[in-house]
Amino acid sequence: MNAITKTAPPVVGYTVPAAVGMTIDEIGTPALIVDLDAFEKNVQTMKAFIEAHGLRLRAHAKTHKSADIALYQIEHGGACGVCCQKVAEAEALVDAGVKDVLVSNEVVDPGKIDRLAAMAKKARVLVCVDDAGNVADLSAAATRHGVTLECLVEIDVGAGRCGVAPGAPAVALAQAIAAAPGLAFSGLQAYQGAAQHVHDFAERKAKIEAAIAKVRETVDLLTAAGLDCAIVGGAGTGTYYFEGASGVYNELQCGSYVFMDADYQRVLDPDGRVISEFENSLFILTSVMSHAKADKAICDAGLKAQSVDSGLPVIFGRDDVEYIKCSDEHGVISDPQGVLKLNEKLKLVPGHCDPTCNVYDWYVAVRGGVVEAVWPVTARGLAL
Amino acid sequence: MNAITKTAPPVVGYTVPAAVGMTIDEIGTPALIVDLDAFEKNVQTMKAFIEAHGLRLRAHAKTHKSADIALYQIEHGGACGVCCQKVAEAEALVDAGVKDVLVSNEVVDPGKIDRLAAMAKKARVLVCVDDAGNVADLSAAATRHGVTLECLVEIDVGAGRCGVAPGAPAVALAQAIAAAPGLAFSGLQAYQGAAQHVHDFAERKAKIEAAIAKVRETVDLLTAAGLDCAIVGGAGTGTYYFEGASGVYNELQCGSYVFMDADYQRVLDPDGRVISEFENSLFILTSVMSHAKADKAICDAGLKAQSVDSGLPVIFGRDDVEYIKCSDEHGVISDPQGVLKLNEKLKLVPGHCDPTCNVYDWYVAVRGGVVEAVWPVTARGLAL
Repeated sequence: MNAITKTAPPVVGYTVPAAVGMTIDEIGTPALIVDLDAFEKNVQTMKAFIEAHGLRLRAHAKTHKSADIALYQIEHGGACGVCCQKVAEAEALVDAGVKDVLVSNEVVDPGKIDRLAAMAKKARVLVCVDDAGNVADLSAAATRHGVTLECLVEIDVGAGRCGVAPGAPAVALAQAIAAAPGLAFSGLQAYQGAAQHVHDFAERKAKIEAAIAKVRETVDLLTAAGLDCAIVGGAGTGTYYFEGASGVYNELQCGSYVFMDADYQRVLDPDGRVISEFENSLFILTSVMSHAKADKAICDAGLKAQSVDSGLPVIFGRDDVEYIKCSDEHGVISDPQGVLKLNEKLKLVPGHCDPTCNVYDWYVAVRGGVVEAVWPVTARGLAL
Repeated sequence: MNAITKTAPPVVGYTVPAAVGMTIDEIGTPALIVDLDAFEKNVQTMKAFIEAHGLRLRAHAKTHKSADIALYQIEHGGACGVCCQKVAEAEALVDAGVKDVLVSNEVVDPGKIDRLAAMAKKARVLVCVDDAGNVADLSAAATRHGVTLECLVEIDVGAGRCGVAPGAPAVALAQAIAAAPGLAFSGLQAYQGAAQHVHDFAERKAKIEAAIAKVRETVDLLTAAGLDCAIVGGAGTGTYYFEGASGVYNELQCGSYVFMDADYQRVLDPDGRVISEFENSLFILTSVMSHAKADKAICDAGLKAQSVDSGLPVIFGRDDVEYIKCSDEHGVISDPQGVLKLNEKLKLVPGHCDPTCNVYDWYVAVRGGVVEAVWPVTARGLAL
């Protein structure tokens, strides 16, 4: 077990792809592997950024859903706590020892509100709000459980998803929260999710500048109304350098930076070059399981081994072969020179890391070609 | 617990969305629900078809990965056994009581071959082969374990994936299998996966007619070589009526027919009408969790609650609202008239059933609006 690992190691079998000490060639496939050197470097790169800019990092655990990784980000990566996107995800991580969690989403179901309030007995719990009726429900649950729920007013800064309009509607909601028993107004949630994967630099920057203007306007209105924003939260791996330099965001919520994925590596700098401060640390390890055609190999990682919503995976470190098609349990690899052999292993960079991690039960953490840890995907599938 | 259920009921909590006896409105969301009336009707429709045509059904368990459903298909749905696509999937179902399983895929990894042979002590085990070197490896494992592995030669009948070419290459491989200790040649695997979702009837029919011709030619060559095809297997929910009427296929491998999905319901009959002998029995139950914009509702089922490889989900029974966008944990629903309320539940028909089932741990089986059973997705994520 390595320094990161907090959970007990599993027993290898048909549900577990690897054991500590195996070489990479002995890992069962398909498996989700984490290159520990790259992972640790990514964590330190983000830590250095937030320290240099005097910011907090509330790492988004929706990316990895792993207690081991969340606790590592908190203990060694400068994170003040984590974001989760679902109450159940938060419960799983709090049960594993995380003490400070923002459910960066609205919680409106009565059963989930009750669980959220109950969780506040074990950890600092924050939640987003975009509905006045929800304020009353959260307040009643917090009062019933004798806890304080910290609330961020979510404003829509361009993502077109959850959140009230910036400005006056946000102030009205913040006032309702501040007046509600059991609730505390802690600031704003202002995540521009629609900007993270915009490949063009100028377009991405313009979207975040527009978001920053809306946040600044809203913070000023809140201040004028006597409401302090302890937290102005948002930003992701595709744009954090903009929010981080804005002077108005103070808590970044990046998640994918620990792993990266194929689509994030299409995000470009002002000169049209791939932004590369983070390395690929997450791979799908796959094996060639059929090569009956001279120019095509079939690998064992298909739709159930990844999410292809942001495109097909990229074969890492190879330009002689290409992953060209995906069905339920198969990937078709173009191999024009017929170089691949049966049982040969390939590392795929998934198109989109978050939903890919959500189909696996285990991370196989590797360093120098040897398995150093096997971590559960603690909150896999937990969406309640 | 209902008549179908074999597994013990789980305890409701943050990992389990429902308990027996709950109404549909009490189910935690997002959840995967099975309408038992529609499910049972689908099972009986397929049973009637295979009986009318004197065929066997080897139901594909890759669709559902559920021991409860597999055993129901065998006990009540006319299935002689199941197909699995992975050794681990087969192991999970054999451990749960399935006695006859075809791994309808190539197994070439030494560790997996060993597990496959070990499994043959507990159940009838069949596997597909498309490589001569693999014959020797399977033979050695079968001999070592003192078992017989039944082998189907997989031929590529148009899918462009695994399988040797029809005709002479298949005969050569069959002869190698027949001569190998511990192996039995049991026939052909001839699944035209690329035809199942072709929406146009004539195009779909032409693809299967081409496949049937290749199968017939290969069966004739094998017969001439003294090799009997006990099994000529293939077909899926999109084309089974063609293979079933061919006179040459004798074992159908349909899987999706138990559930259906949005893409299978774009598959048309000769008159351009949707083919509708099977009903939607599988739904993602989702809740509206934000409605801060007048014309858009946000629901709690996003990319981690489904696979969108075959398109976005369709909202069942509604034409006034539409699921228009999907991100990790959110679905954006167009609600031009503003009819949806917070916490309102909607039933989504997933775009593609198989990889959608693979992200859930539980099926919530419902009849008449009441939960009748909660089944584990027994082989969820098992891909080794």
